Amino acid sequence: MSATATADRDQIESLVRSIILKSLGAAAPAPADGRPGGDGAAGGPPKVVVNISARHCHLTQEDVDVLFGKGYQLKPMKRLYQDTDFAAEETVAVVGPRQRMIPGVRILGPCRKFSQVELAFTDAISLGIELPVRLSGDIENTPGCLLIGPKGSLVMPKGVIRAERHVHMGPRDAEYYGVKHLDRMNMRVDSPCPGTLEGLLVRTHPDWKLEVHIDTDEANSCDLTHATNVTLIKA
Amino acid sequence: MSATATADRDQIESLVRSIILKSLGAAAPAPADGRPGGDGAAGGPPKVVVNISARHCHLTQEDVDVLFGKGYQLKPMKRLYQDTDFAAEETVAVVGPRQRMIPGVRILGPCRKFSQVELAFTDAISLGIELPVRLSGDIENTPGCLLIGPKGSLVMPKGVIRAERHVHMGPRDAEYYGVKHLDRMNMRVDSPCPGTLEGLLVRTHPDWKLEVHIDTDEANSCDLTHATNVTLIKA
Repeated sequence: MSATATADRDQIESLVRSIILKSLGAAAPAPADGRPGGDGAAGGPPKVVVNISARHCHLTQEDVDVLFGKGYQLKPMKRLYQDTDFAAEETVAVVGPRQRMIPGVRILGPCRKFSQVELAFTDAISLGIELPVRLSGDIENTPGCLLIGPKGSLVMPKGVIRAERHVHMGPRDAEYYGVKHLDRMNMRVDSPCPGTLEGLLVRTHPDWKLEVHIDTDEANSCDLTHATNVTLIKA
Repeated sequence: MSATATADRDQIESLVRSIILKSLGAAAPAPADGRPGGDGAAGGPPKVVVNISARHCHLTQEDVDVLFGKGYQLKPMKRLYQDTDFAAEETVAVVGPRQRMIPGVRILGPCRKFSQVELAFTDAISLGIELPVRLSGDIENTPGCLLIGPKGSLVMPKGVIRAERHVHMGPRDAEYYGVKHLDRMNMRVDSPCPGTLEGLLVRTHPDWKLEVHIDTDEANSCDLTHATNVTLIKA
């Protein structure tokens, strides 16, 4: 037992850990332009970037006001791979019906029109929350929780979900894989604990880079950290 | 937020939660003898019992002496599916190199010739332990941890592992699947978060009932709790 680290380091590592893995075709060349996960249909298979979303939340400015003080502005700590979003310096504590708390839940900015907490099943079982699997933003009839910040707390009446596994991509990557918005894909992970995650929802946008989002349970299940290859296939 | 539960209830539920799922062949009849996961090659496909192993430990009597007092005997709380083993009433706290603790880690009895802590990657990341994936008992060159009991604590110099996913079976089930001891199988889970766990190690013994053992990360990844079908296939 020699390693030392702070809680923040863990949070940040989990949140932004980026496993960049080439989808190695049998003799396929690497993308000519070398863009990491870029919309690279030309020049070979695109690089598959898999980002592991550790538990985190999105907040409205109104909820930030309650938790951090009126008019408080989130401080960007690190840009995310889709660079409109950032991990904020700020965290909140999440409390569920078993009177247990998970501290240090990272806030992702910028503020949104709804507040939403994204957990893994492991987190939710610990808190006592029956977690629905939803596309981000689809929060009607989902459970809530208690959020605690340094300046206040609030009951979030809904918005606690497991984010449905999904893959962002631009039009060239969609063309390469032969998929369109809201199609489904499977992702096979070659690792010491190999497996296939099925049914990743395809989400396309002209500006998006190719990026798979899965949660910590999904990543840990297939030991993504030690993966040697990741393959996306149309379902 | 209305449900209430105690910590113990959670531990017990996680530990012994048993998902009994028929491998439904297209028109295959249920096993004629109705044994739950019994060694039932005759009369149709065997029932696949998947048990989720939450974090737990096995201890030597010497380590029990240190943690609970000289000569202390573990109290069986619940028989496990392979009924030579039991979940004990007793738990320990596990501390890793980040000075974090996971309390309430269930002890499985009876005592063994070696002490071993089985964690999920989610647990190990929280504790700061680089977790090797090992067959139970194969603990050379594995990390250790600090164990804390009500009467003492000890440094376990090795024995912290992620147990390799595996399937127990008797000879009739092995014949049904066409596998032998130490072969590999894949398990497909049909659920709201479907997927396939590959490379389950086959372990056979004349007395064993058909039972898959996976950890909480693996179960949560594929939402095993809401699975409608589980299929075992020779790898």
